[in-house]
Amino acid sequence: MLRRACAQSFAQVRSAYVLQLHIGGVQFKSTSTRTEHDTFGPLEVPGDRYWGAQTQRSLVNFKIGGSRDRMPEPVVLAFGVLKRAAAKVNMASAGMDKKIGNAIVQAAGEVADGQLTDHFPLTVWQTGSGTQTNMNANEVIANRAIEIMGGQLGDKSVHPNDHVNKGQSSNDTFPTVMHIAAVQQIHEKLLPGLETLHEALKLKSKRWNHIIKIGRTHTQDATPLTLGQEFSGYTQQLSNSLERVHAALPRLCMLAQGGTAVGTGLNTKPGWPEAIAKQVADDTGYPYITAPNKFEALAGHDSVVEMSNALHTTAVSLFKIANDIRFLGSGPRCGLGELKLPENEPGSSIMPGKVNPTQCEALTMVCAQVMGNAAGIGFAGANGHFELNVFKPMMVTALLHSIRLIGDACTSFTHNCVDNMEANELRIAQLLNESLMLVTALNNHIGYDKAAKTAKKAHREGTTLKQAALDLGVVTEEQFEKWVRPEDMIAPRA
Amino acid sequence: MLRRACAQSFAQVRSAYVLQLHIGGVQFKSTSTRTEHDTFGPLEVPGDRYWGAQTQRSLVNFKIGGSRDRMPEPVVLAFGVLKRAAAKVNMASAGMDKKIGNAIVQAAGEVADGQLTDHFPLTVWQTGSGTQTNMNANEVIANRAIEIMGGQLGDKSVHPNDHVNKGQSSNDTFPTVMHIAAVQQIHEKLLPGLETLHEALKLKSKRWNHIIKIGRTHTQDATPLTLGQEFSGYTQQLSNSLERVHAALPRLCMLAQGGTAVGTGLNTKPGWPEAIAKQVADDTGYPYITAPNKFEALAGHDSVVEMSNALHTTAVSLFKIANDIRFLGSGPRCGLGELKLPENEPGSSIMPGKVNPTQCEALTMVCAQVMGNAAGIGFAGANGHFELNVFKPMMVTALLHSIRLIGDACTSFTHNCVDNMEANELRIAQLLNESLMLVTALNNHIGYDKAAKTAKKAHREGTTLKQAALDLGVVTEEQFEKWVRPEDMIAPRA
Amino acid sequence: MLRRACAQSFAQVRSAYVLQLHIGGVQFKSTSTRTEHDTFGPLEVPGDRYWGAQTQRSLVNFKIGGSRDRMPEPVVLAFGVLKRAAAKVNMASAGMDKKIGNAIVQAAGEVADGQLTDHFPLTVWQTGSGTQTNMNANEVIANRAIEIMGGQLGDKSVHPNDHVNKGQSSNDTFPTVMHIAAVQQIHEKLLPGLETLHEALKLKSKRWNHIIKIGRTHTQDATPLTLGQEFSGYTQQLSNSLERVHAALPRLCMLAQGGTAVGTGLNTKPGWPEAIAKQVADDTGYPYITAPNKFEALAGHDSVVEMSNALHTTAVSLFKIANDIRFLGSGPRCGLGELKLPENEPGSSIMPGKVNPTQCEALTMVCAQVMGNAAGIGFAGANGHFELNVFKPMMVTALLHSIRLIGDACTSFTHNCVDNMEANELRIAQLLNESLMLVTALNNHIGYDKAAKTAKKAHREGTTLKQAALDLGVVTEEQFEKWVRPEDMIAPRA
Amino acid sequence: MLRRACAQSFAQVRSAYVLQLHIGGVQFKSTSTRTEHDTFGPLEVPGDRYWGAQTQRSLVNFKIGGSRDRMPEPVVLAFGVLKRAAAKVNMASAGMDKKIGNAIVQAAGEVADGQLTDHFPLTVWQTGSGTQTNMNANEVIANRAIEIMGGQLGDKSVHPNDHVNKGQSSNDTFPTVMHIAAVQQIHEKLLPGLETLHEALKLKSKRWNHIIKIGRTHTQDATPLTLGQEFSGYTQQLSNSLERVHAALPRLCMLAQGGTAVGTGLNTKPGWPEAIAKQVADDTGYPYITAPNKFEALAGHDSVVEMSNALHTTAVSLFKIANDIRFLGSGPRCGLGELKLPENEPGSSIMPGKVNPTQCEALTMVCAQVMGNAAGIGFAGANGHFELNVFKPMMVTALLHSIRLIGDACTSFTHNCVDNMEANELRIAQLLNESLMLVTALNNHIGYDKAAKTAKKAHREGTTLKQAALDLGVVTEEQFEKWVRPEDMIAPRA
Repeated sequence: MLRRACAQSFAQVRSAYVLQLHIGGVQFKSTSTRTEHDTFGPLEVPGDRYWGAQTQRSLVNFKIGGSRDRMPEPVVLAFGVLKRAAAKVNMASAGMDKKIGNAIVQAAGEVADGQLTDHFPLTVWQTGSGTQTNMNANEVIANRAIEIMGGQLGDKSVHPNDHVNKGQSSNDTFPTVMHIAAVQQIHEKLLPGLETLHEALKLKSKRWNHIIKIGRTHTQDATPLTLGQEFSGYTQQLSNSLERVHAALPRLCMLAQGGTAVGTGLNTKPGWPEAIAKQVADDTGYPYITAPNKFEALAGHDSVVEMSNALHTTAVSLFKIANDIRFLGSGPRCGLGELKLPENEPGSSIMPGKVNPTQCEALTMVCAQVMGNAAGIGFAGANGHFELNVFKPMMVTALLHSIRLIGDACTSFTHNCVDNMEANELRIAQLLNESLMLVTALNNHIGYDKAAKTAKKAHREGTTLKQAALDLGVVTEEQFEKWVRPEDMIAPRA
Repeated sequence: MLRRACAQSFAQVRSAYVLQLHIGGVQFKSTSTRTEHDTFGPLEVPGDRYWGAQTQRSLVNFKIGGSRDRMPEPVVLAFGVLKRAAAKVNMASAGMDKKIGNAIVQAAGEVADGQLTDHFPLTVWQTGSGTQTNMNANEVIANRAIEIMGGQLGDKSVHPNDHVNKGQSSNDTFPTVMHIAAVQQIHEKLLPGLETLHEALKLKSKRWNHIIKIGRTHTQDATPLTLGQEFSGYTQQLSNSLERVHAALPRLCMLAQGGTAVGTGLNTKPGWPEAIAKQVADDTGYPYITAPNKFEALAGHDSVVEMSNALHTTAVSLFKIANDIRFLGSGPRCGLGELKLPENEPGSSIMPGKVNPTQCEALTMVCAQVMGNAAGIGFAGANGHFELNVFKPMMVTALLHSIRLIGDACTSFTHNCVDNMEANELRIAQLLNESLMLVTALNNHIGYDKAAKTAKKAHREGTTLKQAALDLGVVTEEQFEKWVRPEDMIAPRA
Repeated sequence: MLRRACAQSFAQVRSAYVLQLHIGGVQFKSTSTRTEHDTFGPLEVPGDRYWGAQTQRSLVNFKIGGSRDRMPEPVVLAFGVLKRAAAKVNMASAGMDKKIGNAIVQAAGEVADGQLTDHFPLTVWQTGSGTQTNMNANEVIANRAIEIMGGQLGDKSVHPNDHVNKGQSSNDTFPTVMHIAAVQQIHEKLLPGLETLHEALKLKSKRWNHIIKIGRTHTQDATPLTLGQEFSGYTQQLSNSLERVHAALPRLCMLAQGGTAVGTGLNTKPGWPEAIAKQVADDTGYPYITAPNKFEALAGHDSVVEMSNALHTTAVSLFKIANDIRFLGSGPRCGLGELKLPENEPGSSIMPGKVNPTQCEALTMVCAQVMGNAAGIGFAGANGHFELNVFKPMMVTALLHSIRLIGDACTSFTHNCVDNMEANELRIAQLLNESLMLVTALNNHIGYDKAAKTAKKAHREGTTLKQAALDLGVVTEEQFEKWVRPEDMIAPRA
Repeated sequence: MLRRACAQSFAQVRSAYVLQLHIGGVQFKSTSTRTEHDTFGPLEVPGDRYWGAQTQRSLVNFKIGGSRDRMPEPVVLAFGVLKRAAAKVNMASAGMDKKIGNAIVQAAGEVADGQLTDHFPLTVWQTGSGTQTNMNANEVIANRAIEIMGGQLGDKSVHPNDHVNKGQSSNDTFPTVMHIAAVQQIHEKLLPGLETLHEALKLKSKRWNHIIKIGRTHTQDATPLTLGQEFSGYTQQLSNSLERVHAALPRLCMLAQGGTAVGTGLNTKPGWPEAIAKQVADDTGYPYITAPNKFEALAGHDSVVEMSNALHTTAVSLFKIANDIRFLGSGPRCGLGELKLPENEPGSSIMPGKVNPTQCEALTMVCAQVMGNAAGIGFAGANGHFELNVFKPMMVTALLHSIRLIGDACTSFTHNCVDNMEANELRIAQLLNESLMLVTALNNHIGYDKAAKTAKKAHREGTTLKQAALDLGVVTEEQFEKWVRPEDMIAPRA
């Protein structure tokens, strides 16, 4: 039976989950273990994992959340980037043994490439400095380097603290990694998503610039504009969003590395912060620089809050756009019906033509979560004390979540909705022509009073404006056609 | 000229503003002053004010915000209520001199009645325990009592601390007053507003239960329901809102009084907390009781957060309702147009029939502010330390603001919008009849495939369902009329 | 090498991730596929999965977020519960074929037991009604039932819509499942966590009731209280939190089932809603009832907002408690040092005695995320339109996240911090005795002026109060010992 | 009696309140009225006010909130600025009659100067486009201009719409005024406040750079830094805050004027938007320019959200700083006691030396409200529809409130706290010397193991490090003095 076959094929998938929930407890079922040590003493760890005693201890002490709450992969990869850069700088200027240094460079490179992500089992809900994930990185890289050098896992010939963490502290590595990971994800996920949507909206704005439609203010009928003009507003919002993200990036490119324990740089040498930032920049291609003040960089994460707020503002913009599009596409018969949204999946087995604006819904849900994340990040950012903010893992996780969600959702929304939506020109023209607002154009010819009389009559009797105007005898048909021209109402006139 | 005449008539209005901004500075222009003392020494206060040195000192030290940020009047009145009750209990059980006690009772009564509100000039942005407003109350009541007894203002024959504040501390009076004021405003502003709207919606729900209309899910056309059913959902939301507020009230009726400085009740006698709560309950008619744990009552304001969150949930409900109503009333020609909202003011000087849903807009703006206040209150509530939360003035001010805004806005929305809105039955019927969704009713008679074919044809060709069905020859006109009946689609069928 | 061995052992773990990201694209590498159909036509699905065409289509259309964003397992399990109950009721009262019905009952039971969770690959970021996950459940259960009955996967002999979804709509099943899942997780995760912490705090409160310590208001020295009294405040906060969650539960136990598409119950029979609610209650042991108004239950999720706000208030309480404990445990030499927190992991390799309050940090990070989730949930709850709120998947996901986080974090905090923390009685006594606040006790014996003089002298000269008093000659040593007794300052005195 | 005398002197103050609450109702007690007209017909207005029928109608229809909720004065003044500029441009390029134009310029100037603020009685809670306040401005300026020209109030010889509002719509004037008012207040209130605090912190940072103190991470003892270094972090936060506000300013300097009803500029001439922006810039001295896309400028207020978020980030920074300062100043005996905060008012009549950190409290309360306002503004900003966001009055009010509060609170905090606080060098040195963290310095001399043994012994026995080291015989007194030097631990060492 498939179920049984499946059970087998999913056994390994589930194992990670089981491991996380029960590791250290009775239900832990690893086939083999290895003894690792830290200053608290020995501890058994799974035999097929590189991590050591401190990682294992955290698994036991912090059973909070489940597999969804593991430290995000971009943080893990960024630790690889940082530890590799640190080993390079340590070899170049701090006398690190080349053999050890090169092994660390190779091992850290594997972390940076995502090959060892499964050796990072810890969740976000640990110590607020992220120390345990820093140690997880130190332990995994040390053991993998030991393996590369032909040693015995756990023999400390490459030492997690003395070698991998050399010249560093959790207090400066973790905020450094927060910035490395966020900047990288912003460039690889967020900005491409926003740019894609920006381009798509701009294209619609151009393509639809000839389509004149009724405007709506207070959700009520108003004077006309073109569909292209309407979309130019959305395009501007996206262009502003891009500016806002770019405006917040410089401070996120500043790295805390070099502050060590409290910001003073104790146990580092002059020049180390700059060298690390340069190495990370060279290795990644992003313009990281060293933070101008390390005390600020450890004690607060205002720059994370700032970027999160830029995402919040972006979510505000996206929400407006997605909301408008779903209303403009509402119908097909009993809504506004000015846009035809692409039909991507069955809306209902009964009603043809029912297209649910599902991409709008996914995007607006994303916006709501991003706003929530911003609220949480702000709260966390405000509550640091003295030399260290201890909401680091939560802050970076929420920020990375928002970055990914907006990026992905913009891309999905663009390709599965915006790109393929069409203007319902028939419906747009019909609504435009029914609108009483066009009466405005008569003001200059027959005066406000007669114009108002005309509009009131049409509204009361449910006729067209033209009909009412002809009935009242205030214009001829020819005059009406000449004077009431929506195309003359969509711009200033000299 | 009117402007000059006006300038005169507004002179006094402005003076309060001037006073607040510049008091203690060079621009202070009081015609006379009086010397008052506190433990820091003598200080000049305006000659026509009852307040003393500590109030004056706060005016000098906290120039934050303007007249809009004065301590809300309900807090001032509640101080009157509390100080009167304390004097009564002190006379009854703590040996307070009757002459002094009775003068305090009279003076505090004047505060409770709003006669002395202008003697409370301090803003919200002062010490976080509200000490300065407690002292403001003590000073004003003491001086007014001195006056009643024929003494000299400032002679301390009735002492702000020893008499008016007897057995009390700012740390327990201010949270007590927060609860007294909030409970009173909830009963006098919030609940009447919510109940008024609840009744109005319920009435609409009943009156409109015969009007069948198109349903909308995902903002798209769906199966029908009655307009009354739609409004029954709103009615339920209001009824739930009332339940939620009532569910949070018991903990808000608990008074901190008796905790004094840190919750231990130092300097009070056994029985004092209960006696005060009973006296306040008797004097106001609201069911106040003494808080079961005074440490919690001083150190946290979770009950304020709880009520603020009940208002947040209420705002969520109101936002949905007001939003629906403005969309259902959108038009008159190019929107949904199912409701006719009352025309309360000129929408535009040009377009008759343009009714802006201004009451919906006021209500939704109120909802946004209430949500904001809830965010601020939550932040403040979380950040108390040890034996005292020091965000008291801000928390109570934001809570009272939200209470008042929701209460007032519901009342305004009810009387200026809901009461007088009408169903546009013609439009509703027209949309219903155009809907392709009614094809669902044919499924049981001609099968899903033919029904789908019918709907698709109608959608493609823009005809009615009936037309399409007749064209396809799947039903007779008689059958169509018999089978496709919206009135049979609005409830389960046995 | 271990890395290679690991790669193998993690291959399956990774596969789920790969599948989700690339399914439908070139990188999809399933060994076999099967053709499934929906009204849009045929589609290949992985051969070893039960899901059908609509699930597959959603995978293609919504590539938003990653594996962390999959629909939470409690929602999947609750779909099992609901579909099983529906089949039972359909057999009992709607004439469902027993053979088909029983197969559905068995298959749905497997979903409810978590055996088929891996067949639910969709993420949260899909259609806002959760239709695609409802169809995922329908498809998986139908195919598994077909398999049980010996049919061919995809042969529709058990039909996802006609059988598994009989009498239901996504619009009522998804909100039903939201409530089933939340109520279950509240009982199984949240309440046990809160109760555990409540008991632990209560125990401390009792055990430490003899330890008199300095109080702190405005973070400044104040009059004394016992450590037990301080913890009684925290205990009260937890007891209130439990009350708040319980107060919100009744409305969360109300199920939307029976509303079908728009709340009218079209296509159901009278009695169906009650029967379903009863069946679900019987099967789970939780007191579910049918919602009194189905229009409200589909169109808004105020009850989810309400519960989320109860969690927000709870987070406010927990934040205060965890914050206090970390400050009271700060040191060991240069902080307050009144509590000794358990040392669970190496704080630093250098400094013995440095115990980082890591459990406080995990808990406060959780609080920040819960507050963020509440903000997101509120925004989403307010933005429903007409007959359907389309933020359902996001709302339930954030709510379940908050429930789990608070429950887990309270349990972890209790066992890894509160249970094993100790009072540093020596330090507490030392601070208490140094405090100038005890001078208050002299007021009644030597008068305020001399007492103030004593305290000022001690403060200025940095001596003890006793020293200053003796130096001034205002008391004898014997008198000082008799009069200045902190144990007489911690309660009202008759 | 003073009370009676006072009653008289406050009569006028109260009258504004009475007016607002009851105007249009039975309690309205104006001595005379005047008849004004709008398209709805005639209406009585108070005889001594310049406003007309539409303003009066709003007073009747929107009884929400009280006097605290009046449209903020900066909005009123900005209307004066805008209407004056419009009249100038209309005279220069749109043929406006000079006599009328000049009268408008004079009248609008009086509004801009704050002379007519009392003629703007409306609250924030009105139509969401701010139409009623735009009409209030039009009516007041028209009537005042009529008066200047010697006409009869209400005679429409200067017409509110045709003249004062010429070429404008509420839909573009109100957002223009939002930006004018916010930019002006940012320059006049916010930036000076932030700069003042920045300078004060910078000064402390420099002055205190020689004072070495214990660092604190996780609120626990850590390696040393200087008090100046600690304050350099705060200084950096302020400097970043200034950058963030400046980064958001350019988009707030963009004016919507020229979009008229829906963004098309209907009824304006080419060049009008640029001319208006230039005139406003010239008249105010701030660098306003015309918005690049008027559709975006009317339909969304992302730039208001953006600035509000910059204030949110600023509040996050300020909260951290104020929180640190209150903890560093906690005591005097039982807290950290490293700072002596200025004593501005009596803390307690009993305890000398008790200085409550009241300025920190005011500032942190302000931060909480600013965060709340940001939440409300974000919600409002996201919920615009189509061509118009209708949360304008609420958004600008909350933004202006936050601007003012941060500006004022920073100024107050600087002058009443930061400027006069002192380092308690004795206490700082005492804590530093007691710290076990200094043992780190011994690592390089006696090795980690002996160092650890030393620290553990000192911790266990409660002795100094030196004592423990001497007892263990691992160093001589001379060596200890030479090696354990905090001044060598506060920077990288070559």
